[in-house]
Amino acid sequence: MRILVLGGDGYLGWPTALHFSRAGHEVGVVDSFARRQYDHEMGVDSLVPIVPLFRRVRTWEEVAGLTIDTFVGDLTDAEFVKKTLREFRPHAIVHFAEQRSAPYSMIDQKHAVYTQVNNVVGTLNLLYSIAEVDPDIHLVKLGTMGEYGTPNIDIEEGFIEITHRGRTDVLPYPKQPGSFYHLSKVHDSANIMFACKIWGLRSTDLNQGIVYGQETPEAVLHPDLATRFDYDGVFGTVLNRFCVQAVVGHPLTVYGSGGQTRGMLDIRDTLACVELAVGAPPAAGEYRVFNQFTESFSVMQLAEMVVDAYPGRVDISSVQDPRVELEEHYYRAAHTKLLDLGLVPHLLDQGMLSSLLAVADRHRDRVDPDAIRATVEWKRTASWLPTAGRRSDGLARSSR
Amino acid sequence: MRILVLGGDGYLGWPTALHFSRAGHEVGVVDSFARRQYDHEMGVDSLVPIVPLFRRVRTWEEVAGLTIDTFVGDLTDAEFVKKTLREFRPHAIVHFAEQRSAPYSMIDQKHAVYTQVNNVVGTLNLLYSIAEVDPDIHLVKLGTMGEYGTPNIDIEEGFIEITHRGRTDVLPYPKQPGSFYHLSKVHDSANIMFACKIWGLRSTDLNQGIVYGQETPEAVLHPDLATRFDYDGVFGTVLNRFCVQAVVGHPLTVYGSGGQTRGMLDIRDTLACVELAVGAPPAAGEYRVFNQFTESFSVMQLAEMVVDAYPGRVDISSVQDPRVELEEHYYRAAHTKLLDLGLVPHLLDQGMLSSLLAVADRHRDRVDPDAIRATVEWKRTASWLPTAGRRSDGLARSSR
Repeated sequence: MRILVLGGDGYLGWPTALHFSRAGHEVGVVDSFARRQYDHEMGVDSLVPIVPLFRRVRTWEEVAGLTIDTFVGDLTDAEFVKKTLREFRPHAIVHFAEQRSAPYSMIDQKHAVYTQVNNVVGTLNLLYSIAEVDPDIHLVKLGTMGEYGTPNIDIEEGFIEITHRGRTDVLPYPKQPGSFYHLSKVHDSANIMFACKIWGLRSTDLNQGIVYGQETPEAVLHPDLATRFDYDGVFGTVLNRFCVQAVVGHPLTVYGSGGQTRGMLDIRDTLACVELAVGAPPAAGEYRVFNQFTESFSVMQLAEMVVDAYPGRVDISSVQDPRVELEEHYYRAAHTKLLDLGLVPHLLDQGMLSSLLAVADRHRDRVDPDAIRATVEWKRTASWLPTAGRRSDGLARSSR
Repeated sequence: MRILVLGGDGYLGWPTALHFSRAGHEVGVVDSFARRQYDHEMGVDSLVPIVPLFRRVRTWEEVAGLTIDTFVGDLTDAEFVKKTLREFRPHAIVHFAEQRSAPYSMIDQKHAVYTQVNNVVGTLNLLYSIAEVDPDIHLVKLGTMGEYGTPNIDIEEGFIEITHRGRTDVLPYPKQPGSFYHLSKVHDSANIMFACKIWGLRSTDLNQGIVYGQETPEAVLHPDLATRFDYDGVFGTVLNRFCVQAVVGHPLTVYGSGGQTRGMLDIRDTLACVELAVGAPPAAGEYRVFNQFTESFSVMQLAEMVVDAYPGRVDISSVQDPRVELEEHYYRAAHTKLLDLGLVPHLLDQGMLSSLLAVADRHRDRVDPDAIRATVEWKRTASWLPTAGRRSDGLARSSR
């Protein structure tokens, strides 16, 4: 099968490309290197060193004897998208190529507008190109569990049956996204659903939880094949941050009470889920949604698990929540569709925590403690943004 | 009160500005003249002649002795928006300034992307400017009943109480918009709701039905004060099209079976609804939704009403529906909130139909019969677009 991975230079895109390549598929990678640019802009870096894409691909060829095609360009460039699809003629497209940080989207007006335009226009261009080049292409789009927010009822997979005033219909699940980034994903979902309806496209929207883990069977074969490990206040995820804080002897910073509960999954399960989705495409015209996570944890539970797993002493410290979100809430979300397709989850156990702590420990000399602090506040319209090096006074500039 | 009308040169924006001006408010009008550009692009024109904005404003001063401030610029220009708000310091903003045609958004990829970027970015810029200049400003945003689509249950006003697996929550009403334009309005609604939540803004989202009528108490005072009357296949609305077809002796073109049912309202009720919303602002942080229509009609019902109202003979002819929509469906939508605020509707009666037919008749020499045909098809990714004059062979170019 020919599989095109959009955002194939990123945290999940790259290991996904390797995984499909090793499984015998013809793999192409599309990337604009926007993700690497964000690092330069914010003055941060992946904890694990990342080599340039061309070197990753060359090393993969040396290690595995397999080639990966690369297409350098941006999805907001309509002609580039169409040309790439015409050239590669994919059977499936796995679309990771979006600005994916909630804090980044909340930095200020410019970053909010950028995030929505980048994500929405990129996906619109993709939909038009698929419709015109080959409507049979299966679009596997990465969404997020954050599209749903935290309603006080069970979250279903994309759709919900509603009985109202004596009548019943199955309707798109109501969304309550919590950042301009999460909103962009909701906009995408609505656009994709519509494109499936009017043009008969087929798409799987994977509403993914927070991914942890950095080592996949292919990525560990050579240091050049490693994928990112982000722990900074803008692009880092919570478990990575806790592991880094533990190894550098800093208290684990929990936002508010730490009752925020989210679906999570192992990076190896991301690869398995994407593979299951690609292997069982929906019918022409079908738009389906899978909730892609395996377990739910509160932030405080994660902190306590890291405290238990780390051999040394670790403290937990509560900091003011920079987001506007419920710190205590109901959370129960369906996630059976991928299990039904055959997913066998890797659960978050001592082994995974030890492996994450080992990654953090191995690269502890690369840790920038200043990068960890949450500098973007939801209630401000313009948060602090480093331009030439971070400010050292620990103060955020207020816009009002 | 200082009221800023965005899109104040348009079909509804202009009469709204006049209405508030006569009611004693200080009124400013913002416009980029994008709407006039669309006419040039499509090679069509308002049936009723429209003079330039500066002449409209000058005539209003002569006729009514009242001044209206004008701000020429585009909402996608972030600096312009901020500067305008700082200068005019409005108490309320009435936001009509969006690309508002479903067929226009479906012409091709460029027009779909334009519509979503124009509408979403304009509204995002507005939200940021309000938050930074004065979060107390009441944003009255024009949405559309088309955001809901045609679910098989009753449509509520913005939110719905859902009981699911033994728990209950009030959630945003699920949306099923039917064009890239309607999708842009759904995206806007989600962005505005979020801005109210995080920054404490106050906003009223008016999900408006299809507006008919061209004469308002102020607009009839002088020919220079007239507002648009669109009947063409891209920007025209169904009742206008039927009236024009009746007076030129063309069969009324009903799409498909004509069972498509939509909420509608008189242009005078639009002005009344906006005034009621402005007069009773929501609390800080509140995002509220009013369904702004007074009656529901199917397309076939409208055609039959025009047949009955026109003194001469009129036929009805079914043409293939260019849209992807249900031609027969359940439709019942709540619209009590504006009635509760005091709206007294003008219903669609013989008098209104006669007035619309009289407008069409008065300008019958300006009718371009070629402009009426629906040239944009939802199932095509690139529909026929006139560049230098319309093609006369009656064929749409296919993209596939």
